[in-house]
Amino acid sequence: MSKFAVLGHGVVGSGVVELFYKNKAKIEKTAGHELDIKYILDIREFPDSPYKDKFVKNIDEIVNDSEVTTVAECMGGVEPAFTFTKQCLEKGKNVCTSNKELVAAKGDILFEIAKKNKCNYFFEASVGGAIPIIRPLHRCLAGNDITSVSGILNGTTNFILTKMIDEGMAFDDALKLAQKLGYAEANPAADVEGHDACRKICIISSLVYGRHVYPENVTTKGITDVKLDDVKIVRNMGAIKLIGKVEKLENGKILPFVMPMVVPNDSLLSSVNDVFNAVMVEGDGFDKVMFYGRGAGKLPTASAVMGDMIDAERHDDTILSQCWESSADNSFLADSNELKAQMYVRINGSLADAKNVFDISDVLEDSNNETAFVTNEITLGEANKLSEKLDVVTLLPILK
Amino acid sequence: MSKFAVLGHGVVGSGVVELFYKNKAKIEKTAGHELDIKYILDIREFPDSPYKDKFVKNIDEIVNDSEVTTVAECMGGVEPAFTFTKQCLEKGKNVCTSNKELVAAKGDILFEIAKKNKCNYFFEASVGGAIPIIRPLHRCLAGNDITSVSGILNGTTNFILTKMIDEGMAFDDALKLAQKLGYAEANPAADVEGHDACRKICIISSLVYGRHVYPENVTTKGITDVKLDDVKIVRNMGAIKLIGKVEKLENGKILPFVMPMVVPNDSLLSSVNDVFNAVMVEGDGFDKVMFYGRGAGKLPTASAVMGDMIDAERHDDTILSQCWESSADNSFLADSNELKAQMYVRINGSLADAKNVFDISDVLEDSNNETAFVTNEITLGEANKLSEKLDVVTLLPILK
Repeated sequence: MSKFAVLGHGVVGSGVVELFYKNKAKIEKTAGHELDIKYILDIREFPDSPYKDKFVKNIDEIVNDSEVTTVAECMGGVEPAFTFTKQCLEKGKNVCTSNKELVAAKGDILFEIAKKNKCNYFFEASVGGAIPIIRPLHRCLAGNDITSVSGILNGTTNFILTKMIDEGMAFDDALKLAQKLGYAEANPAADVEGHDACRKICIISSLVYGRHVYPENVTTKGITDVKLDDVKIVRNMGAIKLIGKVEKLENGKILPFVMPMVVPNDSLLSSVNDVFNAVMVEGDGFDKVMFYGRGAGKLPTASAVMGDMIDAERHDDTILSQCWESSADNSFLADSNELKAQMYVRINGSLADAKNVFDISDVLEDSNNETAFVTNEITLGEANKLSEKLDVVTLLPILK
Repeated sequence: MSKFAVLGHGVVGSGVVELFYKNKAKIEKTAGHELDIKYILDIREFPDSPYKDKFVKNIDEIVNDSEVTTVAECMGGVEPAFTFTKQCLEKGKNVCTSNKELVAAKGDILFEIAKKNKCNYFFEASVGGAIPIIRPLHRCLAGNDITSVSGILNGTTNFILTKMIDEGMAFDDALKLAQKLGYAEANPAADVEGHDACRKICIISSLVYGRHVYPENVTTKGITDVKLDDVKIVRNMGAIKLIGKVEKLENGKILPFVMPMVVPNDSLLSSVNDVFNAVMVEGDGFDKVMFYGRGAGKLPTASAVMGDMIDAERHDDTILSQCWESSADNSFLADSNELKAQMYVRINGSLADAKNVFDISDVLEDSNNETAFVTNEITLGEANKLSEKLDVVTLLPILK
């Protein structure tokens, strides 16, 4: 008989409790022994909860209870989640988290503490919600050399872009709709400006390449500048999506970034719509695999946390290698100007003007005052420099 | 320092050896200790192989060598693979297999032996080649009640159908092309008649629902009767794909089957083309997730075997629950006549004839001598009975 504690009774935390009691029998069968939730930590009162007797306000009750073997951290934010997680790990309790902000900011430190105390810090739910991506990346693809990971990592922005693509909705209207449906928060900055996707690509990059990639070192561009005109112009060749990607360059450095890109129609990623997320992994052995599902939401995220909790209960040995090292410097990171791709460009000007500056592989729109075209492969740095010679309205890299 | 043995030096077995030496450093880092391949078992001679000194012809050399901790079984077929696997497991060696025929036929027996001898029998490579599906299904989704799993599980048939859909190629020509490209064997029966997909849905059904589902108890229909006319008629609503599916019915029974179905365009499965495979899993917590990738081929399959071998080396504890029980009878299996779905029907006759027999929700083609339509939801059994009253050319269920 082991006991769980759930930190935070918000959307995800309450989902973990709900899912646990709904599927308790199956969960115990998979874990191999009896389980129960002993504590739910939240500063708020939940007088009407069927579990009200489990609520506590002081983390010490959980930290000091040796019956508690695994803790679900569903609080979000860096503090006090960081301090609480440390305290639990230092007592040898496994911690399973949905907190991408904390993993992206301090994962390396927490892995170190988990190792020292022979317990696990799991974070499947921190990327792609319900989609199993951390374990498959780490375990099932372990025999391969991974060359790139590209993902649609934020459901809110994907919903907004889908509305723009399918229904010709303007960005502002699509955002309002997303807020009305509860997909976007009152302050949507973390989503629409790409910070959420950035945290997730940091976690993926750190896991795949073994050294902590910090959000502040990743070029991050959101979708607030994506224009309906461009969405329509590129429709026949692809869809504009917010892509979080990390790729290994020939010089051995890795290049993580988040930006809107044109995803060609022949890529399965272009068919990933609404609030769904997907992660495409490319490697030497398996070529490419994609994982698709709901990247957010109460039960989807809770099911990922629960999967971690079951795994933590089943393997009390530390999964030492599902983690990464701290990075003293950024010498292993490439600058986003080194990104090599074909570019989609729209300018105020004629095709002749464009041809004077860029090597063009395809023309999408050609009038005297407006021209849209696709360049041959070029680095983003070169493309930006060349753009200074033209009146460029839009410049978007095309996903390879 | 642990030693591997690889049984069989065909496509997959040679891929395992190639991939291991290509990524040896990374593999050892993930496994946590030094590794090498000590034996390769094959009755054939490979005088030009750089590993010729590792070849043996007698399984006893491997079985009786205590240095060998993990064995890759890449022979295919039930015998002698079954006997060899048993011998290795009985000596406490982990066995990782790509042999879907053996797992589907005798997995329950081999899991039992593995348990007794405290070692692992892993089979990630037996379904979906490179696609991590077994572990995600078993571990990451463990907290959920899984209601259905639908897959495009055979690359050869998906390639043939893609050619019919995209290029209007007739079945026979598409099959010849598949053979020319090495995607189909000289005797393509196992693929085009659905037996390969059947073995895979048996493995998935057994893993998800915990009792062994034997191929001979699963309704299996291949693609040899799929007509180009139907492919064209349904194009605007969906794509005809060979689907292996298992679903949980309200009466608690499970219904596994393999048959060509119309996959609606709004399902991501309809965009899975060429030799790629995909598996869509639906459950109460996570809603739906999809796994996509190369379902066959030398290195893709080898990378899945290698992932298992690394996991086997990292966890010398038995993963007791990644397995299933024998099934004494078939009382837990539903008959495919109980399959409830909308049906695509094409008849020689008029719409009036059709309306006399079926409840029709949509008409796709309407002429005096030929009519194609979509019915309301109905069981396959009822649909077949009603069909006797008409001159039915084609009857295909539509994937929900």
